[in-house]
Amino acid sequence: TINADRLLRRIEELGSLGRDAQGRLVRVAASDMDRLGRDRLVGWLEEAGLDVAVDRIGNIFGIWKTGANASQAPIMLGSHIDTVIDAGIYDGCYGVLAGLEAIESLKEAGFAPARPLVVAAFTNEEGVRFSPDMMGSLVFAGGRDLGEALASVGTDGTVLGKELERIGYAGSLEPGFLEPHAYVELHVEQGPVLEREGIAIGAVENLQGISWQRITIGGEANHAGTTPMSMRRDAGVAAARVIGFLADRADASSTRTVATVGTIAFEPNAINVIPSRATFTIDLRDPNETHLREQEAALAAFLEKLAASAGVTIHAESLARFEPVTFDAGIVSLIEDGARAAGFSCRRMTSGAGHDAQMIARIAPSAMIFVPSRGGISHNPAEFTAPGELVAGANILLGVAARLAAD
Amino acid sequence: TINADRLLRRIEELGSLGRDAQGRLVRVAASDMDRLGRDRLVGWLEEAGLDVAVDRIGNIFGIWKTGANASQAPIMLGSHIDTVIDAGIYDGCYGVLAGLEAIESLKEAGFAPARPLVVAAFTNEEGVRFSPDMMGSLVFAGGRDLGEALASVGTDGTVLGKELERIGYAGSLEPGFLEPHAYVELHVEQGPVLEREGIAIGAVENLQGISWQRITIGGEANHAGTTPMSMRRDAGVAAARVIGFLADRADASSTRTVATVGTIAFEPNAINVIPSRATFTIDLRDPNETHLREQEAALAAFLEKLAASAGVTIHAESLARFEPVTFDAGIVSLIEDGARAAGFSCRRMTSGAGHDAQMIARIAPSAMIFVPSRGGISHNPAEFTAPGELVAGANILLGVAARLAAD
Ligand SMILES: NC(=O)NCCC(=O)O
Ligand SMILES: NC(=O)NCCC(=O)O
Repeated sequence: TINADRLLRRIEELGSLGRDAQGRLVRVAASDMDRLGRDRLVGWLEEAGLDVAVDRIGNIFGIWKTGANASQAPIMLGSHIDTVIDAGIYDGCYGVLAGLEAIESLKEAGFAPARPLVVAAFTNEEGVRFSPDMMGSLVFAGGRDLGEALASVGTDGTVLGKELERIGYAGSLEPGFLEPHAYVELHVEQGPVLEREGIAIGAVENLQGISWQRITIGGEANHAGTTPMSMRRDAGVAAARVIGFLADRADASSTRTVATVGTIAFEPNAINVIPSRATFTIDLRDPNETHLREQEAALAAFLEKLAASAGVTIHAESLARFEPVTFDAGIVSLIEDGARAAGFSCRRMTSGAGHDAQMIARIAPSAMIFVPSRGGISHNPAEFTAPGELVAGANILLGVAARLAAD
Repeated sequence: TINADRLLRRIEELGSLGRDAQGRLVRVAASDMDRLGRDRLVGWLEEAGLDVAVDRIGNIFGIWKTGANASQAPIMLGSHIDTVIDAGIYDGCYGVLAGLEAIESLKEAGFAPARPLVVAAFTNEEGVRFSPDMMGSLVFAGGRDLGEALASVGTDGTVLGKELERIGYAGSLEPGFLEPHAYVELHVEQGPVLEREGIAIGAVENLQGISWQRITIGGEANHAGTTPMSMRRDAGVAAARVIGFLADRADASSTRTVATVGTIAFEPNAINVIPSRATFTIDLRDPNETHLREQEAALAAFLEKLAASAGVTIHAESLARFEPVTFDAGIVSLIEDGARAAGFSCRRMTSGAGHDAQMIARIAPSAMIFVPSRGGISHNPAEFTAPGELVAGANILLGVAARLAAD
């Protein structure tokens, strides 16, 4: 079993790094704040006696191999340590630190694995600063060209490759330099299911599809006081119609569609000027690819009608598009077996969030373990999972890793 | 008659001052850009031989008095030179420069007025950076405490009084140091009426009521992928509902209500985070005070219902509230008579925009002259009035000023 104190202490410590003047956790990918977290992680990997490696997209790996197993494909445990803006401390960090903890504990216990064990921290999983999300694991899995990914322009106008160089994490290894035999990711659920049902462990068997778009609406700036309603081409009102349409449609959907508009900006953004431009993002998800396509098509049709009726131009650009993923049935069973053997309640479930596991699933058998999130709250500083629940999940991860590394 | 070339040249030159790197005219109140415009105006006032005075709220005055008329209450002509963001060159500047032109031409022609003539450029008419709009004329007319106005915090967190000091326009005279006998403001219509009807001159007999509010909606940040639609408290969707409500209600209104949401911001403003906060402004206007109150009450009722149904908190703060104003019938007739005598078509009309004249009307008989705006476009770089139309308006202003100053 793991060293619970060490794991919990590290989670707290990492959660204290990367906070702004108002105390908000803002360790967004490849920022100075991210560097603080990365440096601390690398220190811990070294203390644990792991070989530290960094690839060209900035993914960090802590590798434990023995003379005997060095030629075998490794078992990889991982997640990410970048965060959203004003984040909680568990999302991502928990999986990385529990992966490290599992490997360190196995090492300390004199376990002799048949395969190397690796903990990975992937770059820019959150996708808040650079699109798409899960970028580091996507590039690692060969799903996106490295050069293209490094050229990504952030919401603040920066370029990812330059930012990685600046913070000292533009590594020299080619992404994909390791070919995992299997991948397991432990994560907080970030949703309400486990807590509501009083279940300790989720064995995640699939992950919903994600469609991210940036919409730009062009209208005409004019005077707020003198322009009759009938003569307006108001980009802001058109944006509000889209937000209302998405919420109504997702609310009314018999499928499990969720739709979110998380960012918005008007131009010129002045109180007495009709907006000439509105830019906003759409995050649309459904566990079923057919349903997700239907939602995308309905949105596109709505935008086309709206452009005509509101006299505005509408441009939609895809920022990320990932189909639903089914995880490896064998690893899902190992997770269930491990949970039951340890006396924990367990259920199979779908992930509502995107995760690095969905990318690594392209190149290796993969699955995920979830633990409960209080109130289903995540991407919020109030994100919380009880220490006992965190320790339970990490012990299941250790058990599954040991099984996978045994042969 | 006025010197047409000089007026048009000055309008072009002032329109070239206060542009950002993208070439947008952004001479917002009390900014460095505003200083450029103010310095140029003061130079012209001095060249015209006028006494330059600046009061404590930063209003600039160019005063022409003779030995004989120095004890009489002056005739004031004025407007403003601050602009919105990405503005046209006529809004405000035209009235100030035509006022200067009228006085300068009368002086050059050897006219001997029975009263002093004053041209005024009032601080922060637009209200884009500091609320409320028409602030300089409001303070001048005693409608707002000077200290309170100077303490106004701008959209960029600056304080008006400090900004005026910084740009060298915190004058020493008490606002209201002049007590005008009458006030006349020439302005571009900024709306479509005169152009549509092919009329050269508008004699503005009233001005609609203005209600500005800042709305802050508090929801709960949560994960865009994992949070079921039914468990959300989405501040952004609630904001969209308000924007939709206002547009629908104003569209359907049998009165002349106009409603605009010109500014918006979400927090934390991340693509995969449900907004925990949405802040936006509402600009609501109607020429009839009873109708305006009905609209405000309907909005308040909607916000209350929405807060309950969407599980959000909603806070509404008034940024500006001005009742409709009726201008002086005598001056309106003088404008009509002047236009007809000069052979121009003329109609009485309502102003959809707020103007300094509505504030000065509290302390002196006031009225306004409008000239056509092409396509009704304003608060937009495409704002345009033809040179001949500009000259026509300035000549009517000169005639009315001469009549008012004659006794
Ligand atoms: N787990 C997680 O929050 N990932 C970020 C990508 C997403 O929005 O699902
Ligand atoms: N004339 C003008 O645009 N004034 C600004 C105040 C308003 O929004 O009406």
